[in-house]
Amino acid sequence: MSFEHRVRVRYGETDQMGVVHHPEYLLYMEEARTAYMAHLGCPYSELERSGVGLAVRRVELRYFAGARYEEELRVTTHLERLRAASVSFRYEIERAADGARLVTGSTELACIDLTRPERPPRPLPSGLSEIVRRELAG
Amino acid sequence: MSFEHRVRVRYGETDQMGVVHHPEYLLYMEEARTAYMAHLGCPYSELERSGVGLAVRRVELRYFAGARYEEELRVTTHLERLRAASVSFRYEIERAADGARLVTGSTELACIDLTRPERPPRPLPSGLSEIVRRELAG
Amino acid sequence: MSFEHRVRVRYGETDQMGVVHHPEYLLYMEEARTAYMAHLGCPYSELERSGVGLAVRRVELRYFAGARYEEELRVTTHLERLRAASVSFRYEIERAADGARLVTGSTELACIDLTRPERPPRPLPSGLSEIVRRELAG
Amino acid sequence: MSFEHRVRVRYGETDQMGVVHHPEYLLYMEEARTAYMAHLGCPYSELERSGVGLAVRRVELRYFAGARYEEELRVTTHLERLRAASVSFRYEIERAADGARLVTGSTELACIDLTRPERPPRPLPSGLSEIVRRELAG
Repeated sequence: MSFEHRVRVRYGETDQMGVVHHPEYLLYMEEARTAYMAHLGCPYSELERSGVGLAVRRVELRYFAGARYEEELRVTTHLERLRAASVSFRYEIERAADGARLVTGSTELACIDLTRPERPPRPLPSGLSEIVRRELAG
Repeated sequence: MSFEHRVRVRYGETDQMGVVHHPEYLLYMEEARTAYMAHLGCPYSELERSGVGLAVRRVELRYFAGARYEEELRVTTHLERLRAASVSFRYEIERAADGARLVTGSTELACIDLTRPERPPRPLPSGLSEIVRRELAG
Repeated sequence: MSFEHRVRVRYGETDQMGVVHHPEYLLYMEEARTAYMAHLGCPYSELERSGVGLAVRRVELRYFAGARYEEELRVTTHLERLRAASVSFRYEIERAADGARLVTGSTELACIDLTRPERPPRPLPSGLSEIVRRELAG
Repeated sequence: MSFEHRVRVRYGETDQMGVVHHPEYLLYMEEARTAYMAHLGCPYSELERSGVGLAVRRVELRYFAGARYEEELRVTTHLERLRAASVSFRYEIERAADGARLVTGSTELACIDLTRPERPPRPLPSGLSEIVRRELAG
């Protein structure tokens, strides 16, 4: 029901305050979430190739302390909720060296049909929702 | 009490879904917020030069539709709340051509002391909080 | 034969050295180049909708001084060379306030067929190469 | 005299053409170069803490094929040349799965003094130039 992923802060992800620029954490969360899906046997790249997308619909973030260049971060991703046409994740980002809490957040993703130009919502593919259900029961 | 800013979507801001990648809207909001501050006579670059920073502490975003490459967007920024050591903004991002609502969001920014390495919270400079108070009374 | 475009440096484009992170200038050049194309009556978004892309094949950049947050930059784009299946641009980025030279560069773009999965090279559409030829003759 | 580093393509690094946006490779090269420096016992973060920076002065890039989302890339970094106040690197980026050449490039970095506001050039610290010289002698 949760997955741990590591990232190392790139120079270009910092800003002139000397810490990671606040939107970058969403990229770490996205990388962690898709690594989690790959770990569950559902790489997101394959999902898209099958014509199904997961589009971010809601984001909530709280910032406690800033990550610095070259620090290793631990991103723990939790599956939070499964609905017919959406799935939600929660994240904690900590500095790996000392476990200091840096950022927490959550994202809700809507399942969409990539084969149609207006990209309408659609139910999650049954294979994916089965895997998510099992993991949530985990 | 609100400020309108325009941005045009850059190619590199899109992702392979063909729409703007979700964290990029935080950059549009940041640009709009600092353009608002400059309009109020308080450029954020000058604030930092005086040793005072505004660090993002909370973010909430809701996504309704995706912006596309070369579209012009209208970002409306509202001052939402002033506290002793923080200030909150709310945003609406619409497609300029037809007013379609794309993304809404809010950010809370904490005032911090950039002259000390641990960057502790500090009250807003009185000049800035006076301007914000007047604008909120608007 | 040249086109002037303005950009204002975003906070997130700076890095911890306090200047714009070096790859960001390629985004300014891309924005300037596509603004130039739109000015010539050839918006790049329409080109892509017609199934034709321009993919960057070569880049050369020289950095003279760093741009800072909130500075306005002037990006001058020159059409440099037209071939059957490629077009080259040259750029000068200056600080608008004092004309200081910050970055110069060039990019060569190959014309590709977006309607085929392997995206093979193809000749420039005759309308576009006609416009470029006229502009080069300028 | 060379160092191999792996990166995995993030979703947000793609653009609407379905491949990695061209400036992103400079971030892969930067990550690879600083991983190389850390491997040589010279983490770039420590260099900056000692008041010395390496600022990119020249970039050359050639693009052969586009990297796709979730692909693993192999970035091989070569030390190329050492001068009194600069150091140059060369890079090859290949798709790890089949070794296909995607991008090659080079960067020249000038050594600068971060303790002075105008950041003037300065010689490389002797410890660093010694390490680079030994590595070049390979």
